[in-house]
Amino acid sequence: MRRRIRLIVEYNGTAYSGWQRQSNAVSVQQKLEESLRKLTGESELYVVGASRTDAGVHALGQNAHFDTFSRIPADKFSFALNTMLPPDIRVCESSCVSDAFHARFSAVGKEYRYLFYVHPHSSALYRDLCAHVIYPLNKEAIRAESELLLGRHDFSAFAASGSEAKDTVREIKQISIRDNAPFLEMRIYGTGFLYNMVRIIAGTLIGVGSGKLESGCIGRALATGDRLCLGVTAPAQGLTLMRVDYPEEVCLPPT
Amino acid sequence: MRRRIRLIVEYNGTAYSGWQRQSNAVSVQQKLEESLRKLTGESELYVVGASRTDAGVHALGQNAHFDTFSRIPADKFSFALNTMLPPDIRVCESSCVSDAFHARFSAVGKEYRYLFYVHPHSSALYRDLCAHVIYPLNKEAIRAESELLLGRHDFSAFAASGSEAKDTVREIKQISIRDNAPFLEMRIYGTGFLYNMVRIIAGTLIGVGSGKLESGCIGRALATGDRLCLGVTAPAQGLTLMRVDYPEEVCLPPT
Repeated sequence: MRRRIRLIVEYNGTAYSGWQRQSNAVSVQQKLEESLRKLTGESELYVVGASRTDAGVHALGQNAHFDTFSRIPADKFSFALNTMLPPDIRVCESSCVSDAFHARFSAVGKEYRYLFYVHPHSSALYRDLCAHVIYPLNKEAIRAESELLLGRHDFSAFAASGSEAKDTVREIKQISIRDNAPFLEMRIYGTGFLYNMVRIIAGTLIGVGSGKLESGCIGRALATGDRLCLGVTAPAQGLTLMRVDYPEEVCLPPT
Repeated sequence: MRRRIRLIVEYNGTAYSGWQRQSNAVSVQQKLEESLRKLTGESELYVVGASRTDAGVHALGQNAHFDTFSRIPADKFSFALNTMLPPDIRVCESSCVSDAFHARFSAVGKEYRYLFYVHPHSSALYRDLCAHVIYPLNKEAIRAESELLLGRHDFSAFAASGSEAKDTVREIKQISIRDNAPFLEMRIYGTGFLYNMVRIIAGTLIGVGSGKLESGCIGRALATGDRLCLGVTAPAQGLTLMRVDYPEEVCLPPT
């Protein structure tokens, strides 16, 4: 009998070309598919991920699914895969879900974290996990600017030029800026994000906090759709996909 | 004029054979000395560190000193060195100190952190920074056991067999166990530590927390000096040297 299996996946993206399979580089998806094909003997097994994270981006709560005829108990896939995967990829949970579960299309919310390291010298210990900001930041200006993102907006100004999305309306439900010196942590939760959107938001907030960009630039970008109102795309290594949410009913096993 | 310069050094120990120079492996001390010799043109420049951390052990606040005839302003050494050092070693501060300052012999206190990752699966994202504990832990038993370490004791049972220390009396002034699930963080502050002492303490507390060792084993080890009362030496990568304290007067520049 064919079953659909959901995986919750953690990875350090430093060594990978990103989530998505590519012809000339090693991706997280490829490592998972190789291990699952070996484990099940199914050469046509494909893994679908919730978010196609870029090279260098990390995940604590990436979600994925695959279909299989294997009889391995659903909750045992995580343990079996972790004996085969490299140590910078771990499957935290595996479970049997209904066919209505689709890692990408069923997702109703995603949380990302962006970590800045604000210090005259870069971080030796945490360098793969954060982006370095040399100058001090106006945290209150960053907080005030970040709140302009809340709500349902057309985020076309926040999409990288390679973006294929036609519908650019998204809803940001929560954003928080936490000062944990020398770290500054941004958390953002929304219904979905355009390509590079979180990194453009992070780069823009740092621009406002350092005085390189004027306060209110996010409001102007939302109103005009103009990418040039915004700051640079912040480096990949500061970004971590924390969590993907789904409607409860699609996460249950088929009855 | 010869001056003594103090450095505060941060490093990720993963790629190094430890602090101390060795003939067949790359150490943090060697990387610092190579950069300083290039910078000053002084081929006989040597760096003295506060703590000879093991291979894989990290530091956020290692201290070191060296003597030089160079006229580079003391506070500029950090910036100059950071352009030459690999990104997993950073000099956070450099300052001119009196000749009474000796990174190792003037130290009056050291703080270490040990990070456990308590989860059925190991951590992909933080794997170089923590030790993996598969089974759940009794945190109250760990806290109670840890308090037996407080005060001035003969810690001979806590020294690895290669230890050369003759005087094995040390004073532990503070120890704390912080639950930040899935992490468990131990912080320990004392006048000094024997070789592998913090890792033996960490391994013993995990033994008590998991039920493999009986409560009170630390008291018995202190009373008898018997290493066999204690647990295994916990892995290097969970350990970070946080801070080294010195008397205020030796940290001032010469008058």
